[in-house]
Amino acid sequence: MSAAASGRAEARPSEINYRLTVAYDGTAYGGWQRQAHATTVQQLIEGALAKIVGQPVTVHGSGRTDAGVHARAQMASVRLRTRLPPATLQRALNANLPADIRVLGVGRAPAGFHARFSARAKEYRYRIDTGAVADPFARAYAWHHPRSLDVAAMRRAGRVLVGRHDFSALAAKSERNPVRRVTKLEIRRRGRWLEIAVVADGFLYKMVRSLVGALVKVGEGRLSVGQLRAILQSRQRTAAVETAPARGLVLWRVWY
Amino acid sequence: MSAAASGRAEARPSEINYRLTVAYDGTAYGGWQRQAHATTVQQLIEGALAKIVGQPVTVHGSGRTDAGVHARAQMASVRLRTRLPPATLQRALNANLPADIRVLGVGRAPAGFHARFSARAKEYRYRIDTGAVADPFARAYAWHHPRSLDVAAMRRAGRVLVGRHDFSALAAKSERNPVRRVTKLEIRRRGRWLEIAVVADGFLYKMVRSLVGALVKVGEGRLSVGQLRAILQSRQRTAAVETAPARGLVLWRVWY
Repeated sequence: MSAAASGRAEARPSEINYRLTVAYDGTAYGGWQRQAHATTVQQLIEGALAKIVGQPVTVHGSGRTDAGVHARAQMASVRLRTRLPPATLQRALNANLPADIRVLGVGRAPAGFHARFSARAKEYRYRIDTGAVADPFARAYAWHHPRSLDVAAMRRAGRVLVGRHDFSALAAKSERNPVRRVTKLEIRRRGRWLEIAVVADGFLYKMVRSLVGALVKVGEGRLSVGQLRAILQSRQRTAAVETAPARGLVLWRVWY
Repeated sequence: MSAAASGRAEARPSEINYRLTVAYDGTAYGGWQRQAHATTVQQLIEGALAKIVGQPVTVHGSGRTDAGVHARAQMASVRLRTRLPPATLQRALNANLPADIRVLGVGRAPAGFHARFSARAKEYRYRIDTGAVADPFARAYAWHHPRSLDVAAMRRAGRVLVGRHDFSALAAKSERNPVRRVTKLEIRRRGRWLEIAVVADGFLYKMVRSLVGALVKVGEGRLSVGQLRAILQSRQRTAAVETAPARGLVLWRVWY
């Protein structure tokens, strides 16, 4: 009698596709993606899952986040051979992860679901502390920029970026397809705090931090809206575009 | 000619009393007060000031905060022989302090001002995260307590504590004068967050955390309002009162 016919094969759970919602404080990590010389969020989640299910696993995130970047709701997918109900899996994951990484939800996903390839849009938010003295409680979650910013000019510049564009000039490396559609770019001021929310169908490498760096330069009066438009149209990254620090950035939401 | 008559004594600045407003994330510290075996906020501020003015200084805080407790606006007073204007002193202090301690303001104070003895009232706030999974961004700033709490019962219990009482039963050590007047105790709920704000003319050692521990026990249904009243009236600390974790507590404001 073959193993397949013995019933043991039936007893072995088949692969189930799961969807994870993960929040993390990125301060201590070398970003989302597994790498050789830094502890990463993906690595810790894979390690926790491997311990729970007793076999190596590969987790796919909706995208990378850089070292020091945070996530309010990163999405990930993973195929597992397990019979654990999603709620049990979630509890076991949180029990095996450090307190700065929390699994907010686990659900079964359709077989074809892939956190990266299925994503339709993403929202990032970037926070700037314009107070004269930095808020010590936000030091890992905001860019302290204690100069006044012309928010009206930043909003005009933001409108230049909305729409379908080749964003090569606002990315940190060249990609085969550098065209993305930005569907929302909102700049909100609340007292000393400035929050920039950007929604797009996808983002190039360091695109949000480059957008923010350029918008802040406009807000400081060091770059005009026309100059920003020319930079975007040049499709060439230049030294005129600075990358805002990682700590102010949060992956806010992923749409499927 | 004596030194006093030479004019050099006149040139030497006389002592000026300064008032400092200090915010700190207490996570990394052994509390406010200088001590032998831990780094404290007072010690770092005294060290920074000593470096700036070139002589040892003693800073008086409005009161101690325990290890892990935060301050949004701790007040301190210090007498200095310096000619530095307050704004320069503030910048120099922040340049010599770690990012989790920020001097929000420096001003000249009347000669008789003492941060502790002149204080008329203080407000502390305590934050509880009642979400099923802890918010990773609040892990150092809230007590994660993932059980539902009867907020109405907690508010009734809070009213028992308002007024002038001997709070020995809600302190962690006995004091010569254990009578304090609590003038406000408010419990606010916003979604998953519960915030308890307490104003009093002074607080005994670990009094806020004991109050919060008792109120949460009422909220869980493990202690009745009548039992809390009896505990307060007993003036004896018992095992029935648990001390809430330090990380949820913030010294919010000091009145003079």
